[in-house]
Amino acid sequence: MPDGSMSFRLTILGTSSALPTSDRYPTAHVLNVHERLFLIDCGEGTQMQMRRYRIRFGKINHIFISHLHGDHFFGLYPLLSSFNLMGRKTPLHLYAPAPVEDLVSRHLSDFDIHLGFGLEIHTLGSRDCTLILNDKRVEVFSFPLRHRIPSCGFLFREKRAERNIIPGMIGKHGLTIAEIALLKRGNDIVREDGEVVSFETVTVPPPEPVSYAFCSDTAWFKELPEYVRGVDLLYHEATFGDDNEELAVKTAHSTARHAATVARDAGAKKLLIGHFSARYKSVDILEKEAREVFSATEAAREGTAYIIG
Amino acid sequence: MPDGSMSFRLTILGTSSALPTSDRYPTAHVLNVHERLFLIDCGEGTQMQMRRYRIRFGKINHIFISHLHGDHFFGLYPLLSSFNLMGRKTPLHLYAPAPVEDLVSRHLSDFDIHLGFGLEIHTLGSRDCTLILNDKRVEVFSFPLRHRIPSCGFLFREKRAERNIIPGMIGKHGLTIAEIALLKRGNDIVREDGEVVSFETVTVPPPEPVSYAFCSDTAWFKELPEYVRGVDLLYHEATFGDDNEELAVKTAHSTARHAATVARDAGAKKLLIGHFSARYKSVDILEKEAREVFSATEAAREGTAYIIG
Repeated sequence: MPDGSMSFRLTILGTSSALPTSDRYPTAHVLNVHERLFLIDCGEGTQMQMRRYRIRFGKINHIFISHLHGDHFFGLYPLLSSFNLMGRKTPLHLYAPAPVEDLVSRHLSDFDIHLGFGLEIHTLGSRDCTLILNDKRVEVFSFPLRHRIPSCGFLFREKRAERNIIPGMIGKHGLTIAEIALLKRGNDIVREDGEVVSFETVTVPPPEPVSYAFCSDTAWFKELPEYVRGVDLLYHEATFGDDNEELAVKTAHSTARHAATVARDAGAKKLLIGHFSARYKSVDILEKEAREVFSATEAAREGTAYIIG
Repeated sequence: MPDGSMSFRLTILGTSSALPTSDRYPTAHVLNVHERLFLIDCGEGTQMQMRRYRIRFGKINHIFISHLHGDHFFGLYPLLSSFNLMGRKTPLHLYAPAPVEDLVSRHLSDFDIHLGFGLEIHTLGSRDCTLILNDKRVEVFSFPLRHRIPSCGFLFREKRAERNIIPGMIGKHGLTIAEIALLKRGNDIVREDGEVVSFETVTVPPPEPVSYAFCSDTAWFKELPEYVRGVDLLYHEATFGDDNEELAVKTAHSTARHAATVARDAGAKKLLIGHFSARYKSVDILEKEAREVFSATEAAREGTAYIIG
């Protein structure tokens, strides 16, 4: 297993659309990037699913909400309340479209919730791909989706790591910590006695950085593939099948075939579909229809961790 | 099994206090009175628990909310949204303390929820025992509790049914439908030929009406037993044990011992405790402490149906 796999993985907590079923919770994803946990959408029962699938509450410092419809949002206040009761002090960053700031501050007051930690609310705009978070290991971008209310997708791009020292080379060349740091960044070392240690002989390149994009809720629109071009894993809603394409258009949702078209046109490596309408007891038909356009499609399953890269 | 048992039963959907655990959902009870379902409190995930325990959504026309703290309320909007998506047309009655009307109308608009059925909101006052619902089979009363925000308890009293005709008596006396109706209401029949049919010889009394009271959240206070005097089943919160009595007082909650004291002083037949703090992995100690005061105590279990009467 190459260094870095397992370090970018997605756990699906909910696969239903607005109406949950006896075995599908509404939308919530947890992306683990080198042990930073990013929660994406937060439907009702997200915290129950987090407990069920052993997601560590304390590792979540960033929550991304695609839009302010309840099936993507109703779990947020209970989760904030639980963070509070668990004694959280670490600030939490919340990203969502307008009017999130007004809404959340009013609702917390309505529900008599007084947070003991900082809640920093970042209102997402509706412009093209925008960098909204830039940390040591990952960049997060938001981009506009087309839904009945302002709605955003999210793109998580792992940053390129430094090169890795080949085991044994430290001893063989007597490398100091300062020299190792230089070599890992791709610099050769020239010592006082003229000895040259080439970074190419003592290090190997890091794994290729990977990426994940989240698109829900959205109607199909032609600019979307551009926002998620070449992504390793594309999650795209597929509320309906071909049998309900008209309803998809009317409600500004996608069919499985629409989702697959986006994956194909974007040159995605793999497509995960979800946000399934309760009318599909089995989602095999949605998987089948998507695969006709884009074979590397899988129907999301709750509790499953998808390793990206 | 006497006529009428099974016709008044309580299903517990959640036993946690504000912080749910991996095996405890927040408060929600469903009382079935002759196939009328009354939902009492509606914490996060109530609709998931309803599906798990096969509670029929369409039979709920009345929802009672004790107070507007999230762990008793966060499941309401998702449930209303699901009713809507399921095509509900039947009006729904919602009972809760102020400012429920203002809150709910604002929040539905905030969440872009447009109900296709009537939602009739009844704001509960803080006066003594008040009749809030009076239908053919049951009377429902609200009464004030003592919590950090306005909070109500609920008392459900089955109405006394008519007497039951003894099998065989209809044929024996050639009773008409009009005569049966009179006899069931306790009237003797005197026929034109002077024959007397005594209601006592052809009917038996109905089962004694039963009652259920719900008390959560509340601090202990001396008037409470009066509101629930002689109740068949008393549900009373028991968030804490003796070890945290000080915290109970500070947060306006009850200990298991407080709950048992209310049951004893009210002359309740049976006590069910719940709303357990997450700090008690096992609630055996709470059950034990309550039983020291009131032996007919049981710790509520999710999914269990308690037959009353």
